[in-house]
Amino acid sequence: MTEPLTVSHQLIAAHLVDGRMAPGEEIGLRVDQALCQDATGTLVMQELEALGLDRVRTAPSVQYVDHNILQADERNAEDHLFLRSAAQRFGLWYSKPGNGVSHPTHMQRFGVPGASLAGSDSHTCAAGALGMLAVGTGGLDVALAMAGEPLYLRMPRIWGIRLEGELPDWVSAKDVILELLRRHGVKGGLGRILEYHGPGLATLTAMDRHVIANMGAELGATTSVFPADEAVRRFLRAEGREQDFRPLTAEPGAPYDLTDVVDLSALEPLIAAPTSPGNVVPVREAAGTPISQVVIGSSANPGLRDFAVAAAMAKGRQTHGGVSFDVNPSSRETLQDLTLTGAVFDLIAAGARIHQAGCLGCIGMGQAPAAGRHSLRTFPRNFPGRSGTSDDSVWLCSPETATASALTGEITDPRAWALREGVPPPHLDLPEHASVNRAMLEPPPPAETSAAVELVRGPNISALPDLDPLPDTLDGPVLLKTGDNVSTDEISPAGAKALPYRSNLPRLADFTFTRVDPDYPERARRTGAHLVVAGDNYGQGSSREHAAITPRLLGLRAVLARSYARIHWQNLANYGVLPLEFTDPADYDRISQGDELRLTGLRSRLGDAQDAPLLVHNTTKDEDYRVTHHLTARRRTAVLAGGVIPAVAARRSAPTTG
Amino acid sequence: MTEPLTVSHQLIAAHLVDGRMAPGEEIGLRVDQALCQDATGTLVMQELEALGLDRVRTAPSVQYVDHNILQADERNAEDHLFLRSAAQRFGLWYSKPGNGVSHPTHMQRFGVPGASLAGSDSHTCAAGALGMLAVGTGGLDVALAMAGEPLYLRMPRIWGIRLEGELPDWVSAKDVILELLRRHGVKGGLGRILEYHGPGLATLTAMDRHVIANMGAELGATTSVFPADEAVRRFLRAEGREQDFRPLTAEPGAPYDLTDVVDLSALEPLIAAPTSPGNVVPVREAAGTPISQVVIGSSANPGLRDFAVAAAMAKGRQTHGGVSFDVNPSSRETLQDLTLTGAVFDLIAAGARIHQAGCLGCIGMGQAPAAGRHSLRTFPRNFPGRSGTSDDSVWLCSPETATASALTGEITDPRAWALREGVPPPHLDLPEHASVNRAMLEPPPPAETSAAVELVRGPNISALPDLDPLPDTLDGPVLLKTGDNVSTDEISPAGAKALPYRSNLPRLADFTFTRVDPDYPERARRTGAHLVVAGDNYGQGSSREHAAITPRLLGLRAVLARSYARIHWQNLANYGVLPLEFTDPADYDRISQGDELRLTGLRSRLGDAQDAPLLVHNTTKDEDYRVTHHLTARRRTAVLAGGVIPAVAARRSAPTTG
Repeated sequence: MTEPLTVSHQLIAAHLVDGRMAPGEEIGLRVDQALCQDATGTLVMQELEALGLDRVRTAPSVQYVDHNILQADERNAEDHLFLRSAAQRFGLWYSKPGNGVSHPTHMQRFGVPGASLAGSDSHTCAAGALGMLAVGTGGLDVALAMAGEPLYLRMPRIWGIRLEGELPDWVSAKDVILELLRRHGVKGGLGRILEYHGPGLATLTAMDRHVIANMGAELGATTSVFPADEAVRRFLRAEGREQDFRPLTAEPGAPYDLTDVVDLSALEPLIAAPTSPGNVVPVREAAGTPISQVVIGSSANPGLRDFAVAAAMAKGRQTHGGVSFDVNPSSRETLQDLTLTGAVFDLIAAGARIHQAGCLGCIGMGQAPAAGRHSLRTFPRNFPGRSGTSDDSVWLCSPETATASALTGEITDPRAWALREGVPPPHLDLPEHASVNRAMLEPPPPAETSAAVELVRGPNISALPDLDPLPDTLDGPVLLKTGDNVSTDEISPAGAKALPYRSNLPRLADFTFTRVDPDYPERARRTGAHLVVAGDNYGQGSSREHAAITPRLLGLRAVLARSYARIHWQNLANYGVLPLEFTDPADYDRISQGDELRLTGLRSRLGDAQDAPLLVHNTTKDEDYRVTHHLTARRRTAVLAGGVIPAVAARRSAPTTG
Repeated sequence: MTEPLTVSHQLIAAHLVDGRMAPGEEIGLRVDQALCQDATGTLVMQELEALGLDRVRTAPSVQYVDHNILQADERNAEDHLFLRSAAQRFGLWYSKPGNGVSHPTHMQRFGVPGASLAGSDSHTCAAGALGMLAVGTGGLDVALAMAGEPLYLRMPRIWGIRLEGELPDWVSAKDVILELLRRHGVKGGLGRILEYHGPGLATLTAMDRHVIANMGAELGATTSVFPADEAVRRFLRAEGREQDFRPLTAEPGAPYDLTDVVDLSALEPLIAAPTSPGNVVPVREAAGTPISQVVIGSSANPGLRDFAVAAAMAKGRQTHGGVSFDVNPSSRETLQDLTLTGAVFDLIAAGARIHQAGCLGCIGMGQAPAAGRHSLRTFPRNFPGRSGTSDDSVWLCSPETATASALTGEITDPRAWALREGVPPPHLDLPEHASVNRAMLEPPPPAETSAAVELVRGPNISALPDLDPLPDTLDGPVLLKTGDNVSTDEISPAGAKALPYRSNLPRLADFTFTRVDPDYPERARRTGAHLVVAGDNYGQGSSREHAAITPRLLGLRAVLARSYARIHWQNLANYGVLPLEFTDPADYDRISQGDELRLTGLRSRLGDAQDAPLLVHNTTKDEDYRVTHHLTARRRTAVLAGGVIPAVAARRSAPTTG
């Protein structure tokens, strides 16, 4: 007798090429589709080059340009030229700047139920809304996937989240995921897939589900999965792709590893207070706080309805004088439909600033708020400084809460606003068919054309670094000791200052850890080999592998943490930084910044086995700590070689035996 | 018998409070209206404070926010808070970020035929389109005007430009001003008002005239003037302000100091090649040059029709794959109308990137092109590096030329494109009434409310510098020797790196002259008192007084030039930098960078008289050069005191006699 399978298990089983579906074990998955965005993509394209790939094996593979589109100087445009040439060279689609954020655009144009997708962006998981197995990961993992290699993950536990009831007026999909963050925090989803099911699903459109799946990343989840049901069929039909639909639902009685229930009808408007997506409180508890900015858009609220509801609320009214009301359309298709329906007109008339389609302020590219002033955003993250402002105060909420607040000038529960103003819940008359338009999406040229394309590499695009093997004895100081939940935004900042250097690694290294310790880059350059000690959930947030590479360039050889966020752990290993975990979490407290640590016999001991304990000697305090690693043999080989790229190179140049 | 008067003479006579209308003599003009933008306005607001002003005397006075609206970090938003508070404190209107570029917005909401307008932006002259006397000038001159002081100018010569015939298909207003630049170059308008008249006027709308008046600044003209005729009445009616119309035309037979004739029917599409608005050639001569960017918008092509014609051409077609087609709406009102008419939809469908309303790329705030790639823009200026890209290649043209080129991927004569594609000249069905909307324009509060407003001054807003008096003997090296036509963009760069520091003078000073000599700031800080030697038309372009203040902060005490652009000459004098001119232009060639110069007895000799010659001794070469100044007694007092602000302070603290 076979056990009935969840959607997640069906998806994994259909793509499993290595390992067993036992939680915690490493599995290798066949990857159907791949996506990159520009902030991570310039590295991915160089990794494809380093891997000697002629043409990508995944289809479609798409290079989006959505992050660095302000073009404050020539570097962004230089990246765009490089990425377009690389897309043509390696056989990817190229999504031009202004075509929109990767996640909603991919969903609109390419998403297919049942397919697997690897993306070098942590919110790739949003495509789970269509019944896809969509995993955000480091750029090198995506490059390997494009080269036809499996994507390796630890088999997650499947967390069935049953939705019941129907959302009340003025409460929307964003409040569902904020409720999960309120309950479980930013580590609640570590090592898990969030799989939604239950009768409440019927009331959520595919784009509503995108909102929920997208911010599963904020719980640290491996991904989120929805069934492919009638809502998905409707979505694909509206996009002119009903032929891509195939149903995918959990088999009756399929058991989940963990369960939770959300009664949609009991939800109220929620808001994540600064400076973590996990600081969720009811909006009414924060009501009255004066604000100076509201931004709607981003992949965390990308749907036509998310903007249309804002337009309906703002229609005939005016943005508060002290508030900048910024609208970031998530895709050019959505902007086109919003223009058609009059929503853009209503928003402009109400005093909104309409920006080009793209990530923009969500990644700190523009729209930085005034220091110390409150900014409300429908974005997925509010880590300190991510907005581009050092002393920022960013709150995350639904479009309804954001718009009500933009109109009043203070944090406002949309229900209270509607009651006061006598406004009925908006009836949105959305077009049945989307303004499908592929004009900014260039298809890959035929293979024979591709082969002749030269990469357009400007002076700001550095080469990949040479990575030396891990030494047998590692001696070095703890150059930095961090707390819990340090995000990759704090390790390698985005924002308008740093992002233009995403293709220039030596220069980008100057920004490493500067949000937590402005001195780190200089100290590291002086010191050379060193270690970092970290708390729980180290490296949460964005998938940027720069957060592994630039510390490595500055001499980081090992991290000792209580625990890791999944993608960052992979990125460290991919780039030859040894990710160790304390066996006794209390040892974290015994190490001080500046202590000299020593690990001996690394090459032999690491070769031993997965999870083999190692000893770290603190020469400053003359103490020993027991640490473990969870590196599979494959990953141990890579770390010992200095990273995956030297490991692949070594494998290729090794004499063929047998 | 009285001589019949030109429009310019009538306007000047109606506002003359000091001096005679004889070309070259200094005149003082009563100022009715005043405008600032944010990049110059933070200084103006501080100057109002330094002048001890309680409430502005000009009406309306408007603080626009259009330059620094990318918000790459907290500084832009900090400026916005400061400017809003200062507008409330001193009684100005506040135009929120996103409401649009000052010039078209002012014309739409506030322009009145017959009124005078002083603005701290060099394109303030655009309002001449409505029959206004509109003069761009340094911020301090605007601050003084707001305080009720006259605006001082040299009486210009009035240059009657007779327009005949009618523009052919695919040729538009931009080609008219490019033709004048082709004929007369960037110094052709120095000391002149360009007054347009003749039968060709009837075919030009008020916004067409704005295009022409705006770029009169590129000829170095004091301003440009059009009559207030039926076209102006139509414009004001469309804006819901017909009651503000009053006719103003040249009296029959009024003589002009100079004359020129443009046969509109003989014009063809023109384009200004890199890197000067004066490098004008027919588009057909540049046709075929591959491009990577096209931007339409800015105050040099702000009208509804300028965007509508682009939309009509692009409708149903696609932007070339290798081209980024950027659309900068000039005002939120225009964007609203473009949305209503479907033009925004057509542009998006064709692959355009729609940006918020504002100056953006025109002032180097975003949209920087790739180095060495050609960018076509409907902007007014293409000085080297102004785009934000060091090695840029920017061309200036009409929306028709820009759009045809965006579609083909190379510089394209729109006539040739239309012929090839079989496209008839677009018939534009524009709305008769504009989407008038004051929602982003905050009126000044009543005086009693204003008085209680505290300025919101963040940490990035520096105080005005202390300015010491001119020494009697000035010893110093020629720290820099420049060529002809150095623009204020080269003296104090705009762009996304420097602009956020416009309120932080000591920090902004680090950018001084770096476009021509990256070493200058450091050398100047080491040296202290020094001089600069310059060629012809020194300080052309933008009105930014930062180009006078930051060199002054670094020790600049005198400039020796062959000739000056008007506004920069005033700014130097306003901030106590002695602007000297060679009596014998050949002396310019005898001085080398590094030579030590000495001026003695400055305080007594400068006191003597206007145009009194001074001797400059070159101690390195043991030579003497004769130089003059054209400072009136009022300006000499100011320069001796160290600038206008210390001069005003001294006048106030002097014992009252008589």
